[in-house]
Amino acid sequence: MSISLVILAAGQGTRMKSDLPKVLHKVAHAPLLVHAMRAAESISPGRTVIVAGHGAEQVSAAARAYDEEAQVVLQEEQNGTGHAVQCAEAALDGATGDVIVLYGDTPFIRPETLQEMIAARRAHDVVVLGFEAADPGRYGRLVMQGDMLERIVEFKDATVKERAITLCNSGVICAARDTLFDLLAAVTNDNASGEYYLTDIIEIARARGLSATAVTCDEAETMGVNSRSDLAAAEAAFQARARAEALDNGITLPAPETVHFAYDTYIGRDAEIEQMVVFGPGVTVESGARIRAFSHLEGCHVSRGAIVGPYARLRPGAELSEDVHVGNFVEIKNATLHEGAKANHLTYIGDAEVGARTNVGAGTITCNYDGVFKHKTTIGADAFIGSSTMLVAPVTLGDHAMTGSGSVITDNVPDGAMALARAKQVNKPGLARKLMDRLRARKAAQKGE
Amino acid sequence: MSISLVILAAGQGTRMKSDLPKVLHKVAHAPLLVHAMRAAESISPGRTVIVAGHGAEQVSAAARAYDEEAQVVLQEEQNGTGHAVQCAEAALDGATGDVIVLYGDTPFIRPETLQEMIAARRAHDVVVLGFEAADPGRYGRLVMQGDMLERIVEFKDATVKERAITLCNSGVICAARDTLFDLLAAVTNDNASGEYYLTDIIEIARARGLSATAVTCDEAETMGVNSRSDLAAAEAAFQARARAEALDNGITLPAPETVHFAYDTYIGRDAEIEQMVVFGPGVTVESGARIRAFSHLEGCHVSRGAIVGPYARLRPGAELSEDVHVGNFVEIKNATLHEGAKANHLTYIGDAEVGARTNVGAGTITCNYDGVFKHKTTIGADAFIGSSTMLVAPVTLGDHAMTGSGSVITDNVPDGAMALARAKQVNKPGLARKLMDRLRARKAAQKGE
Amino acid sequence: MSISLVILAAGQGTRMKSDLPKVLHKVAHAPLLVHAMRAAESISPGRTVIVAGHGAEQVSAAARAYDEEAQVVLQEEQNGTGHAVQCAEAALDGATGDVIVLYGDTPFIRPETLQEMIAARRAHDVVVLGFEAADPGRYGRLVMQGDMLERIVEFKDATVKERAITLCNSGVICAARDTLFDLLAAVTNDNASGEYYLTDIIEIARARGLSATAVTCDEAETMGVNSRSDLAAAEAAFQARARAEALDNGITLPAPETVHFAYDTYIGRDAEIEQMVVFGPGVTVESGARIRAFSHLEGCHVSRGAIVGPYARLRPGAELSEDVHVGNFVEIKNATLHEGAKANHLTYIGDAEVGARTNVGAGTITCNYDGVFKHKTTIGADAFIGSSTMLVAPVTLGDHAMTGSGSVITDNVPDGAMALARAKQVNKPGLARKLMDRLRARKAAQKGE
Repeated sequence: MSISLVILAAGQGTRMKSDLPKVLHKVAHAPLLVHAMRAAESISPGRTVIVAGHGAEQVSAAARAYDEEAQVVLQEEQNGTGHAVQCAEAALDGATGDVIVLYGDTPFIRPETLQEMIAARRAHDVVVLGFEAADPGRYGRLVMQGDMLERIVEFKDATVKERAITLCNSGVICAARDTLFDLLAAVTNDNASGEYYLTDIIEIARARGLSATAVTCDEAETMGVNSRSDLAAAEAAFQARARAEALDNGITLPAPETVHFAYDTYIGRDAEIEQMVVFGPGVTVESGARIRAFSHLEGCHVSRGAIVGPYARLRPGAELSEDVHVGNFVEIKNATLHEGAKANHLTYIGDAEVGARTNVGAGTITCNYDGVFKHKTTIGADAFIGSSTMLVAPVTLGDHAMTGSGSVITDNVPDGAMALARAKQVNKPGLARKLMDRLRARKAAQKGE
Repeated sequence: MSISLVILAAGQGTRMKSDLPKVLHKVAHAPLLVHAMRAAESISPGRTVIVAGHGAEQVSAAARAYDEEAQVVLQEEQNGTGHAVQCAEAALDGATGDVIVLYGDTPFIRPETLQEMIAARRAHDVVVLGFEAADPGRYGRLVMQGDMLERIVEFKDATVKERAITLCNSGVICAARDTLFDLLAAVTNDNASGEYYLTDIIEIARARGLSATAVTCDEAETMGVNSRSDLAAAEAAFQARARAEALDNGITLPAPETVHFAYDTYIGRDAEIEQMVVFGPGVTVESGARIRAFSHLEGCHVSRGAIVGPYARLRPGAELSEDVHVGNFVEIKNATLHEGAKANHLTYIGDAEVGARTNVGAGTITCNYDGVFKHKTTIGADAFIGSSTMLVAPVTLGDHAMTGSGSVITDNVPDGAMALARAKQVNKPGLARKLMDRLRARKAAQKGE
Repeated sequence: MSISLVILAAGQGTRMKSDLPKVLHKVAHAPLLVHAMRAAESISPGRTVIVAGHGAEQVSAAARAYDEEAQVVLQEEQNGTGHAVQCAEAALDGATGDVIVLYGDTPFIRPETLQEMIAARRAHDVVVLGFEAADPGRYGRLVMQGDMLERIVEFKDATVKERAITLCNSGVICAARDTLFDLLAAVTNDNASGEYYLTDIIEIARARGLSATAVTCDEAETMGVNSRSDLAAAEAAFQARARAEALDNGITLPAPETVHFAYDTYIGRDAEIEQMVVFGPGVTVESGARIRAFSHLEGCHVSRGAIVGPYARLRPGAELSEDVHVGNFVEIKNATLHEGAKANHLTYIGDAEVGARTNVGAGTITCNYDGVFKHKTTIGADAFIGSSTMLVAPVTLGDHAMTGSGSVITDNVPDGAMALARAKQVNKPGLARKLMDRLRARKAAQKGE
């Protein structure tokens, strides 16, 4: 009996002031929605149903990009959370086991918390996730009697005594599929907003003699995003956690507060990450590698002993083997640099393979694009690429090959050969001085006019 | 009857430990003095008089650079605020209407606050700007009786009871021109410092049966700058406000705390500004543009759909049309890139025009400077500039033109033509290996010596 | 009678989760151990003994790199601080005068504090450094009687009354050499941990009728490093102090919180350091120089009037004379740029000398490495290096020399000469359009397949 997941993701998010649906705004390079989906991964949901509304097409694409088996159902009109969950009923036809309802704008629920809810279901029909609020403000309150949850009361409907309760409602709920939809069928929109509230199922459940309880999590897990400020706060919370974890894991971080991690960054012990480094998604930095200041990494792999930066940009597909050096103002894209290869200054290496111990001179560029197609550059081991060599792809250079600096290499270079494409230097005595004198005279004349 | 503005800007600012006059130190790229002038813009002052002293020439230049009609008068000796305002008397000869006195080292008074002061003048002869101080410390206190301001008492002269007052003096004052100077004429320097205090006019006004009142603003508006730490705090306050406003305006800012705005930065809704971006003065980023990490922008315009950076530098006169891409380690200065043009890697484009959809290859440089003059490069639409092309300006390339990578282009290139300036590649078999062996042998010999 | 220094540096630092010995982790680019050694410099220690254990070889190398006369003794087994100090006994054979015991993981003890301890020794046999703890927690407590220190009690052995004491033990201690080792000889390991505690010498001293006292320092000075988080906190504390000092010294810092100093950075008054600048060790920036955003400096000297960056990297040996400009995406290593020289864009200058007022064009590279040796480039004054000039070292260019852009310069260029190494431009009418049409047709065909 596997668990089903329903994620509510239909809201417009007006306060975001954005054309992008709220749940697609990102924290640490992943959409809020994907954070919710990731949290639920540990419970291996048999089915995942996303309830989309505003921007449903974009939401659907993002959900499917992360999990191609995710189902997306449409909530045409936003008639409340109860109605939203009902929209998922047909998609869960035939599903057995429990349903957990999560929210696409609440990215930080921990897997352990969901496990606790599932465990609590053994003893209760419905389980709600609550949190002790530092400032309960206008949150809904969980009215408990011993470990039994009696009902969830909205702030505006709460009595003075109920308002004194500090255990608040996160909205996350867990129940058996059939229980959930049976209870929902009894929910009415007979309230000021004219909406169907998911929270109403608790009172109905209790009235029917079912048992309900609350599991409590840290308030930080329930952080929701409704505005750009909330989003920035969520990003800051994510980064604070990621930085603390990185320190705990034995990573050298002289200024952790200036390093920006992605949701899936992996860094090994004793790797060093200097100041002001940005990690996009898909980065692995092995133990003992060094990422210098002002570097920007996405979708790449950096091996032990490699040194990257300062000011290095590793783009998707950059694969740096052990002891590779990639220096300042160097961009690497879709290219493998083998053990000990070096590209230290002002270089672009794209769609390429660079052999072990090969030295790529300053200003070298793989000319990988002809305006329509991309082509590959292959360089052997122990080669020496002179400064400002243009490698016009497709092109192959052998082991121990060399190029003269300033050469445009359009033909393959055999092993051990030197390739030159260079005009002879001519010195014209006195010409520089004459030219400069003439220019200066012209300027003086202009000023005199 | 328009309002006149007097800005006191004569102080040396010894605690700044700087050769630059205090009021010329900058917050968000504008001198403190200009912040004060900008605040007063909404009241459309008929005359603006800057009272300068230390570094008067520099102060005058900065004031006139911002508002060429600003008058600058000299306060030869610093004999107190009252004396400073008196120095402006002649310059306000014939001025009718009110005078507002502001301070060149107090950059954050809000236009709304000045409007309130002007409104309060309808019912009172003199209006002082006060603030409720969280920690009143050694500020001067406003002694009120109902809504009537009786006098301003310096902390050191205050009684225990007066020291308990938390409404403090900002120094900003508003009165009719003639009233102000009549009152000032009665101020003496009969005090411990031997200075003429502007604040003394209140007691004199009251003694003469004139009415005075106080308008209250937020303490943050009255933040003054006396030291480098104060300046850093003022910058931090400006940035905090600018970041919050940017979030409110629907801008995507994953790490707002790392983005540095200028006083006049304009960014459209749903534009994305990644981590660690610096805005100098004069930048407009349209809705839906994306500024990637580590970018630096000054005096430029970025249109919808454009992508800038990471590590892009846009200098004054950079005009990026829709969907233009400017990538890493690229500098653009005084150049227009038309719709869809791309310059993605290691490029310098200065004094140039780049046609629509043209692709500028990596390492391309517009050689715009001959040592004396700057020259223009013009590239047509749909052109393809090969990597490391040197465009020796003045030079024009037509639509659909191409250049071979590594070419130095000194002559114009017609529409649809291919320009090449390239030596033929020669491969010398075995030469690379022989050279390297010889070098290594020499090194080994050196070590053996 | 000079003072001897013993620095305990044997701990493994398990909680650092690192292969590097704890005391070699760095704050502001100097190992923790070196911070301790630097603090003690003002007392001109006659002998310095480092007690090493884990990673002793690396610790020894680091200590000697900083002070080649430092002695390193080995503590084979970690039997407590008392045992550690005893390991230094033989190395201090014949030393007269006092011994101060410091800790390799406690980087922030101030020289003034050590001076105070030495002064206190005039009146007492043993002097311990204490601090008033904001939260005494599990620190050892100093049990005082008047100004007499009676004993140091570990938290776990303390009575309720003793636990109420807020004066805590820093571990730093000062005594005459012979006194110290006599007392240590009486210390036993008769306690739960089976270790010899240095702190036990106080009680023994008092029992023998010797006098002991405590000198008090700020708690911040006693900050120790046991984990990566502690290290990050120590770095943050260092930077906060360095930033405040820089502001106090009259340096222009619009965003001090984004500037990262090294332990030995020197910056003159009215120099400007923009946002996000990293200083490695060995940097001097003279008064009135300007370091723009995103710059990275190590081992270099920047003179008055020079402008560096944005995005400039100055590496060791970069010497910038007055009014030199080094611009974006430019790297300078082991090179002197004379007065007024400029290298503004996308350039690598390594192992070079550039004459006064010489202009180095964009994309210029000194090709200083032949794969085995490094060679020098020398450029005279008032020269003009065209864009993308490759200067194949060793090579010398005279005063007033010029190079054509895109030239590869392999031979010397005389004064006033123009050097060109350039293929003639050929325009092939219509070829660009034909090539592009063919490529597009091929792409269309591929798609159609």
